[in-house]
Amino acid sequence: MKNKSITSRDEDFAKWYTDVVNAAHLASYTSVKGCIAIEPNGYAIWEKMQEILDKKFKELGHVNVQMPLLIPENLLKKESELVEGFAPEVAWVTQGGSKELEERHCIRPTSETMFCDYYKDHISSYRDLPKLYNQWCNVLRWEKETRPFLRSREFLWQEGHTIHATAKEAEEETNRMMEVYKWFHHEILAIPTIVGRKTEKEKFAGAEYTLTNEALMYNGVALQSGTSHYFGQKFSKAYDVKFLNKENKQEFVYQTSWGTTTRMIGGLIMVHSDDYGLVLPPRIAPTQVIIIPIGNSEEVLNLVDKYENLLKENGISVKKDLTDKTPGFKFAEAEVNGIPVRIEIGERDLKENKVTFVRRDTREKLVEDKNIDVVKFTKELLETIQKDMYERALERRNKLTFKAHNLKEMEDILNTQPGFIYADWCGDKDCELKVKEIKGCKSRCITDEPLIDGKCVCCGKEAKYSVIWGIQY
Amino acid sequence: MKNKSITSRDEDFAKWYTDVVNAAHLASYTSVKGCIAIEPNGYAIWEKMQEILDKKFKELGHVNVQMPLLIPENLLKKESELVEGFAPEVAWVTQGGSKELEERHCIRPTSETMFCDYYKDHISSYRDLPKLYNQWCNVLRWEKETRPFLRSREFLWQEGHTIHATAKEAEEETNRMMEVYKWFHHEILAIPTIVGRKTEKEKFAGAEYTLTNEALMYNGVALQSGTSHYFGQKFSKAYDVKFLNKENKQEFVYQTSWGTTTRMIGGLIMVHSDDYGLVLPPRIAPTQVIIIPIGNSEEVLNLVDKYENLLKENGISVKKDLTDKTPGFKFAEAEVNGIPVRIEIGERDLKENKVTFVRRDTREKLVEDKNIDVVKFTKELLETIQKDMYERALERRNKLTFKAHNLKEMEDILNTQPGFIYADWCGDKDCELKVKEIKGCKSRCITDEPLIDGKCVCCGKEAKYSVIWGIQY
Repeated sequence: MKNKSITSRDEDFAKWYTDVVNAAHLASYTSVKGCIAIEPNGYAIWEKMQEILDKKFKELGHVNVQMPLLIPENLLKKESELVEGFAPEVAWVTQGGSKELEERHCIRPTSETMFCDYYKDHISSYRDLPKLYNQWCNVLRWEKETRPFLRSREFLWQEGHTIHATAKEAEEETNRMMEVYKWFHHEILAIPTIVGRKTEKEKFAGAEYTLTNEALMYNGVALQSGTSHYFGQKFSKAYDVKFLNKENKQEFVYQTSWGTTTRMIGGLIMVHSDDYGLVLPPRIAPTQVIIIPIGNSEEVLNLVDKYENLLKENGISVKKDLTDKTPGFKFAEAEVNGIPVRIEIGERDLKENKVTFVRRDTREKLVEDKNIDVVKFTKELLETIQKDMYERALERRNKLTFKAHNLKEMEDILNTQPGFIYADWCGDKDCELKVKEIKGCKSRCITDEPLIDGKCVCCGKEAKYSVIWGIQY
Repeated sequence: MKNKSITSRDEDFAKWYTDVVNAAHLASYTSVKGCIAIEPNGYAIWEKMQEILDKKFKELGHVNVQMPLLIPENLLKKESELVEGFAPEVAWVTQGGSKELEERHCIRPTSETMFCDYYKDHISSYRDLPKLYNQWCNVLRWEKETRPFLRSREFLWQEGHTIHATAKEAEEETNRMMEVYKWFHHEILAIPTIVGRKTEKEKFAGAEYTLTNEALMYNGVALQSGTSHYFGQKFSKAYDVKFLNKENKQEFVYQTSWGTTTRMIGGLIMVHSDDYGLVLPPRIAPTQVIIIPIGNSEEVLNLVDKYENLLKENGISVKKDLTDKTPGFKFAEAEVNGIPVRIEIGERDLKENKVTFVRRDTREKLVEDKNIDVVKFTKELLETIQKDMYERALERRNKLTFKAHNLKEMEDILNTQPGFIYADWCGDKDCELKVKEIKGCKSRCITDEPLIDGKCVCCGKEAKYSVIWGIQY
């Protein structure tokens, strides 16, 4: 039964998105303009994301730290591109207690500044390098238009900031972390993404270059889903982060930063969910299986417990719903919350030795013998769901991936059905700006794909880059 | 060998503390006045604290959420006691982007406000209760005097905020969470604490009452180490958080909040550490065992690997130090970092089939046969260390626990050696203020102990309470 509180996805995608966020209790608006409360169901997804990414970061040698939330204005100003990029959207603290501050402090929009300021006093020789630091924290950007998870003034993220003795090592790190984000999206979130390099116009303020992980939502709008920046020595020169190299000479360090945010929760929704609510890939679902009894005979409840224990013992995250709500209500709730597998155990079915497994992604019902090897069956089912969800997302993305040879074609595509549009580009910023005039379409990234016809989609002159374009969140 | 960078604890306790924080690389001052950078070694302790507490909170049915960092002034002002208590020490955001804000926002000093504002729109009936929410986050209080971990403008903490249908349930929650803090200090941090109730003067602004977990540092100064507040309906009335009770009548919810902070890292240092650096109880140590080879013969390195694998497989957190530093340097480093057990494997010892285990807490060397059951031996050694550390801390606290019958006795104690001072009290705030004139000595908590002589330590009139007093951080 379709959830009545959810607008149809094909009818009004934006409203559908908000409805899913509300119906699945992921987040809620608050009295603080542009800021959300992340509710238990939403935060549990973020905790799972943190758990998996943090483990991976640590395997790669990173350690966690915590830098201050506030940045004195003078310190922020040291790197001119960074301050130009972020100054229009920071929040300023001007009073502490009852006093006006001598120097105003901004709430961190990102922490390159603080990491540089720290590193400069804590390294002296190549022996101290590399430093592979990361922090999980909140940041704030004074956005005008906001949407839960996709764009809010405050959001949660991780920001890795590393320094290295050579450009080569730093560039390797930049690539390695982008591969981690890609892996995380493909393997865990079941979201196919394309990795490429941002154009000069779209790169991070102050970076030599920015790698990006680009996903396509169900409606054909792109979502930047993790970036990894190579700074070279730009920040280390601005903040005086030097070390004595192997040749016993002072040299500025080579630096990277990389980040992913709670926005990924928005991506999960917009790639996988449907008119019945949230759909979560099993590997990121905080609860993978819910067992719902129909009736409360001893036989039913015993089997509920038996299944629960077996699944739990075998590392599957399982819950049972023993509340006094009706079974129908419980089914709907499990559905809207996106729990990948629902097991229904009812008296009538048990008379025929049957139990029912319901896949959340396809809503398919699988009637099985009650003496089935429930652990093996459930594990395989979860893996099948994970795989199928990725395949469906990939199929949808492929369907919404186009090629354009000129602006007219691009415009036609964007007017019909937006998506990823491959088109060649000469490298000129003016051409990039002209494309943007079509519904705000931006370059997503420069890819390694061969050129289409070698002519710039805008000016028709010789193209240098194969670029993916798209409308973005 | 004493660490030369560390001042003797008995000579200058304050300097010793700062030296340990620096030498063990726990935290560092930053360019942001009053704010620290928590370095990898310090943050790893906080992660371990989070892991253990979070698991316990969840076992008790709590779920995590995330409320906004910023609180609009109007919202903060709704509960008069809270705003009076915190207004003098909050930081105000007055500009967002390039614009002056119409209403200034404070950075949360605590989040009762935001939780109330959330709850009021998200509950309607007793069926929605209780709500057992917690958040891990940063908070900011514009302190004048700051010290790493003990008092800094920004700090990390968890804040639980729960609402209930009855006063009884809420009071049970208040007590339950205080028991969790006590358990965490006794069993995990090896810090004996005393739980009691704060006086009216010392309770949390806006609470009906505050329970506190009080620890005593090596130097006899008290450290408040976790508080749990019962609010009754004070906040729910101010913020209009109502529900339909079982009698179908509108009623205001009953509320609690409870929190612990990164300050516990300061407590760990000041209870257990010594002139050689940090000493960590095994249950909270991010690394429990470090294996250090002396020489690099195959035999040595093979045994290092064998031990490492065996310990790791058995759930012990172990590292090996294969860097090219000298063994002596590695020993000192392991020592200053507070790793509970160090295993030294050297060529000369191996000729006699010997390896050496060194306890960090007592610095005792245990020479053992290399074919010892290393897992069993190490596990037992870690448990012995944990137990001994608690016992020593308890012994020290007992030594620094006094009784006073009058102000003269209290003054004598505080002038000789501060500590926990038991003294009877009439309940009059004026008497409490008079005690405070003696070196700022405050009531720590009201205890369940019998009265000493039934006379107020200050005015000599009939006493109502057995109170512990002490100088605090």
